[in-house]
Amino acid sequence: MIKIEHLGIAVKDLETSNELFRKLLGKPLYKEETVDSEAVKTSFFELGESKLELLEAMNEDSAIAKYLDKNREGIHHIAFAVEDMNAEIQRLKNEGFQFINETPKEGADNKWVVFLHPKTTNGVLVELCSDRKIL
Amino acid sequence: MIKIEHLGIAVKDLETSNELFRKLLGKPLYKEETVDSEAVKTSFFELGESKLELLEAMNEDSAIAKYLDKNREGIHHIAFAVEDMNAEIQRLKNEGFQFINETPKEGADNKWVVFLHPKTTNGVLVELCSDRKIL
Repeated sequence: MIKIEHLGIAVKDLETSNELFRKLLGKPLYKEETVDSEAVKTSFFELGESKLELLEAMNEDSAIAKYLDKNREGIHHIAFAVEDMNAEIQRLKNEGFQFINETPKEGADNKWVVFLHPKTTNGVLVELCSDRKIL
Repeated sequence: MIKIEHLGIAVKDLETSNELFRKLLGKPLYKEETVDSEAVKTSFFELGESKLELLEAMNEDSAIAKYLDKNREGIHHIAFAVEDMNAEIQRLKNEGFQFINETPKEGADNKWVVFLHPKTTNGVLVELCSDRKIL
């Protein structure tokens, strides 16, 4: 694990939250992106070497919609940048961690992403991500 | 806001979670610290320019004990490093954010800390922190 790549924050209304986080961080978002495979609209704010990613569901089947059915808005996941995705997946499997998906899938921001199941990570939804070009 | 200073993660048993995060991050904690004013035992893991702070309640009155009464273990707060604490507090007050404490108090890791109320920050408990020497 190299660094916190980003924190994912589930929001009900992206436009409203974009304005809220602009005020909070004192600077505007630098990118908006739609991830059709996850049915989310996202926006990104830069913060040092990390990012905040706001996530709004595009439909009821989105993981974010399901999350907001059970939880209030807030931090949804933490993403760690990894250098060698396959080696890191193998290392964590050997340590007994369970994955939601073991095969990297295309995430936002041109990344390969996998998710660990929160039941093996102290209730924290952990994402690993690496740049798509270096998988 | 300069960077994510740390993420605070509420845990039931620090010893168990220290071992879990050692496996997850692939390296051990670098510091343990008791914060009597908050009634918490903490441990710190380094991750790039940020840290993960695990928090275990020392008694029932601790904010972490109250949090775990209502929530499962997981990400409790996000702390942003600020350069000029007083200027940042004033800026955020002018933007309409509400504080849990406006007067900086002594936090772990030799920091001054204030907390914003999650009801004005999209459900995210936000901490601002600055080094005690530069307040």
